[in-house]
Amino acid sequence: MNPRNREDADRAGIASITAELLTAVNASDAARCGAVWSADGVLMPQHHPPVQGRQAIIEYFRRLFSRSKVGFRFTTSYIHLLGDTALEDVTYTAVIWPQGGVSPIKDAGKGLHVFRREPDGSWKLTHGIWNSDQPAREGS
Amino acid sequence: MNPRNREDADRAGIASITAELLTAVNASDAARCGAVWSADGVLMPQHHPPVQGRQAIIEYFRRLFSRSKVGFRFTTSYIHLLGDTALEDVTYTAVIWPQGGVSPIKDAGKGLHVFRREPDGSWKLTHGIWNSDQPAREGS
Repeated sequence: MNPRNREDADRAGIASITAELLTAVNASDAARCGAVWSADGVLMPQHHPPVQGRQAIIEYFRRLFSRSKVGFRFTTSYIHLLGDTALEDVTYTAVIWPQGGVSPIKDAGKGLHVFRREPDGSWKLTHGIWNSDQPAREGS
Repeated sequence: MNPRNREDADRAGIASITAELLTAVNASDAARCGAVWSADGVLMPQHHPPVQGRQAIIEYFRRLFSRSKVGFRFTTSYIHLLGDTALEDVTYTAVIWPQGGVSPIKDAGKGLHVFRREPDGSWKLTHGIWNSDQPAREGS
């Protein structure tokens, strides 16, 4: 593969992982969310300690989806290729519907994804962190 | 320089940038905070939209320091070298003293720093994002 084709293939591979994560989150499918993470990946959610390892990440999403349904969208994405590592900076919008008919919560913010090329050639997430653009509520 | 010495030098250069940022934040010195960022760097604070570029980052810190004094500490740091880019994942504790004698706010969380080797050989921050481990306050 020439370098340009290799770069295009890497960008496409990474974009497909982000798209798969989005689909999995919006489908409330915790196992499918976990599948895009490396075995030792670290999810870094806001208002929660870091979640280390694919199994713990699946459990995190399972608990999240038992409490709420999420409608997530990436509004911008920039992918930076760094050999066998890649960075993606994103902006997002989200709507969270808590269980029990409470009003939906709207959010918008930004995040960083770190990807690693695995020995089998696939890309997997090793780090994901995000935070809200919206002002903290009074006292928070 | 042999590869091992080069790696040690890179780690030391990156650790010194993080240490300088910490000193500058704790000294409420906005210009000094800005100096560790690349001209096109992006600061991604929680509860605030992304802040793009060194001048905007200096203004962000100036406004922050006009409202509060910050006592910040990194509790863990792992540096991942990727050629002319590097990642650092950190955990932190912080105490924020709002102006006007209100009680201090304690926080603990995690973050990701991305560094780039500049043409002059120095390392500079290109991305910094963090978020709190603590539960959102009621309604936030």
